[in-house]
Amino acid sequence: MSERTITVLGSTGSIGRSTLDVIEQLSKVEPIRVVALTGNGNIGLLAEQARATGAQLVVTADEKRYGDLRDAVAGTGIKVAAGLSGLIEAAEMQSDWVMAAIVGTAGLRPTLAAARRGANIALANKECLVSAGDLFLAAVKAGGGRLIPVDSEHNAIFQVLEQDQRHALERIVLTASGGPFRTWSREQMANVTAAVACNHPNWSMGMKISIDSASMFNKALEMIEARHLFDIAPARIEVIIHPQSVIHSMVGYTDGSVLAQLGCPDMRTAIGYALSHPLRPTLSVERLDFARLARLDFEAPDEVRFPAIRLARLAMERGALQGAVLNAAKEVALESFIDGRTTFLDMAEIVEHVMDLLAELPAATSMDAVFAADAEARRLAREAIDRRAAA
Amino acid sequence: MSERTITVLGSTGSIGRSTLDVIEQLSKVEPIRVVALTGNGNIGLLAEQARATGAQLVVTADEKRYGDLRDAVAGTGIKVAAGLSGLIEAAEMQSDWVMAAIVGTAGLRPTLAAARRGANIALANKECLVSAGDLFLAAVKAGGGRLIPVDSEHNAIFQVLEQDQRHALERIVLTASGGPFRTWSREQMANVTAAVACNHPNWSMGMKISIDSASMFNKALEMIEARHLFDIAPARIEVIIHPQSVIHSMVGYTDGSVLAQLGCPDMRTAIGYALSHPLRPTLSVERLDFARLARLDFEAPDEVRFPAIRLARLAMERGALQGAVLNAAKEVALESFIDGRTTFLDMAEIVEHVMDLLAELPAATSMDAVFAADAEARRLAREAIDRRAAA
Repeated sequence: MSERTITVLGSTGSIGRSTLDVIEQLSKVEPIRVVALTGNGNIGLLAEQARATGAQLVVTADEKRYGDLRDAVAGTGIKVAAGLSGLIEAAEMQSDWVMAAIVGTAGLRPTLAAARRGANIALANKECLVSAGDLFLAAVKAGGGRLIPVDSEHNAIFQVLEQDQRHALERIVLTASGGPFRTWSREQMANVTAAVACNHPNWSMGMKISIDSASMFNKALEMIEARHLFDIAPARIEVIIHPQSVIHSMVGYTDGSVLAQLGCPDMRTAIGYALSHPLRPTLSVERLDFARLARLDFEAPDEVRFPAIRLARLAMERGALQGAVLNAAKEVALESFIDGRTTFLDMAEIVEHVMDLLAELPAATSMDAVFAADAEARRLAREAIDRRAAA
Repeated sequence: MSERTITVLGSTGSIGRSTLDVIEQLSKVEPIRVVALTGNGNIGLLAEQARATGAQLVVTADEKRYGDLRDAVAGTGIKVAAGLSGLIEAAEMQSDWVMAAIVGTAGLRPTLAAARRGANIALANKECLVSAGDLFLAAVKAGGGRLIPVDSEHNAIFQVLEQDQRHALERIVLTASGGPFRTWSREQMANVTAAVACNHPNWSMGMKISIDSASMFNKALEMIEARHLFDIAPARIEVIIHPQSVIHSMVGYTDGSVLAQLGCPDMRTAIGYALSHPLRPTLSVERLDFARLARLDFEAPDEVRFPAIRLARLAMERGALQGAVLNAAKEVALESFIDGRTTFLDMAEIVEHVMDLLAELPAATSMDAVFAADAEARRLAREAIDRRAAA
C-alpha cells in the first residue's frame, strides 16, 4: 500500500479535530501522512496538532498571530505561514487528499486552489457549493480530482447514489432533525435567545451551525448544495423531518427503491468515508443498535414556521448568485441574532428582503463576482438590520 | 437495445403473476420477450398467460393436466409439455433470464438446470439456497450467469452490498415484520388456528408463507439463504423486528455506516430490479411517503417465543444438510398444522427433533443426497407427528 498524503484546511474546528482523529485511526492500518494544517486563532491547539502529526507546514489564517504560531513550533522544523496567501500555499502543496473544513467564505479560495491542482477533496465547507457552485465544480472537473461531501446528509446521498444509474434517480430525500423548535409555534419562537436556539437535540456542533439548524437555514444551504453536488432538479429535492437523525439522508429510484445511509451521530464515519473513498475504512465509532433505537419518526417540514426551506427553493429557482446572496445575508442576520439585535424570526425576513433586492444579479463568471455578491448582500443585510433597529 | 428473453418458472403463483406484470411494464420501454412459462394446476391462468405473452413453450408440472393444458392453448402454436421433464425443458430453453419462482423442493432441479446453462437467475425459490446452497452456488458459478435474489430482504441486501468492499462488510441486518403474533405470549400462541396464523400484517401472500411468517420460520430460512448468498459468517447475520416492513433489510460496514433499502410492500420492485440488474428499471409501483409513514419501529426478536430463529442458527452452525433437514421437517410440520393435527408451537419442536436425529448427515456432493435428506427428514417428521397424535 503506497503512502497517502493529506492536508487539513481548518484543523482546529469540530470537523478538523475529528479529521485528525480519523487520520490517526487510519494510520494504524495504512501509511498515511499529514503534510499541512491550517487554523485560525487557536494557536495552541494548531501548534500541538502540527507537532503531533509531523506536518511540514502549519498556517494560521490570522496574520497577526504569525509570530505566536512561529514561536509555538520553534525548533520543530515545521514551516510556518499566515493569512490568505498561507492558506493557499497549504492548499497548493502537493498532497493526495484535502479536507476542506474552513468555515464560511474564507474557505472558498483555498478550497478552489486545492481543486484546481487536482487534489481529492473531502468537502466540509458549504460556501464552495452554495455561493460558487458552478465555478467550483468546473474547477474540480478541470483539476481531475474526486469530490466527496463530508456533511452527513450529502455523504449519505453520495454513499447510496449509484453513479452509473443516474438516469434512474428520481429524488433525493434530505433528512432534518427539525432542531430544538421543531414543535414550537411561531409565537413561541418569536422571543428565543441564541443560547436557547443553539441547543441541538442530536449533534454537538458549533453555535452558529446549531442556530442554523434551529432556523432550518442549515437545511436550506444543504438543499442548494445537493442541487449542485448531485446535479438534480430542485423539485426532486425533498426535505423530511426525522428527529432522531439516524437516517442521514436517502435517494429514491424509478423502480420504487429508496436507499438510505444510517449511522450514529458521529461525523467520523462521513469523514473516514470521504478520506478513503472508494474504499471503506475500519473506524472505531459507535455502531447502530436498532433494538435500542426502538423507533424512527418522520414528519413533513412546515415551511410557514421554517421559511428557510421556502427561501432555498426560491434561490434554486432564481439560480445565478442567489445562493451566495442567501448565504451572506443569512450570516449577517445570524450574527445580529447572536448579538441580540435581531429576533429569531426576523432572520428569514432579512434574508428574503436581500434576496429580492439582488434577484437580478447575473450568474458569476469569476470568483470576484461571487465575493462582490457576498459583500453586497452583507451590506444590504446590515442596512436592513440598522433600519429595523432605528424603527 | 437488443431484445432480452425471459423464462418464468412458476408463473401462476404470487411472484409469477407479479413477474408478468413487471415484464409488461418493462416491455413498454425495451424489447423483451417471454419464451417459456411453467405452472402447476391452475391451467386456465397458465394458458391465458401463455397466450397473452406469446410464449413458445408452456408447461404444467402436473402430468395429469397435460391434456387440459394442450386443449387450452389449442390452435395457438404454443408448444406444451408436462411434469419434471417439461419443467427442465423450459429451464434449459435458451433465454437470457430465468425467474425461478417454483415453490418448494420441486423448484430445485429446474432452477439448477437454468443455472447450469448460464442463465441470469432471479431467484425466488428458497430451497435452492436453504437445502442445496453449496451445490447450487457451484452450478451458478460454473454456468457463469448472474444470481439476483428476489426475496425482498435479500434483494435489499443485494442492492446495498458493495461487491468491491466485501472486506468492509461487518453485518447483515435482516428485518422481520414479526408477523401477527409479534406481541403474543407462548400461552396465547398455543391454540391458534391456521386461519388466524396466516393473517400477515403487511404483505398479501400465500397461506403457507404467511404461517411461516407468523412462526418466523420464514425468517429462519432467510437467515440460511443469506448465509449462502452473501458468504457471510452466521454470527454476522442479525435479525431485527420491524413491524412496518418498510426497511427491507440492511448492511453494516466497518466504517459505522449502515445502508438500507426501503420501499412499499410490493414485490414488483424487487422483481423488476432482479430482472434488470445491473440497470434500474422504471416501474409503476407506489412510492414511499415518509410523512405519511410517520414512524418505523424496531425491537429485538424473542428467540424463546420464536424458536425458529434459534434453529436457523443451529442449522448454520452444524452446516452440511441441516438446512435441507430444517426446511423439509418444517414443511411437514406446517402441513400438519394446517390440517389441524399439530399445534402452532409443536412445529418448532418437531423440526428441532428431526434436526437432532439427522445432525450427523455429511455434506451433500450431489442433488440426490439433498433429495434423500429431504425425504428422510419428511419421513421422520411424519413419524414424530404420528407418535404425538397417538400419545
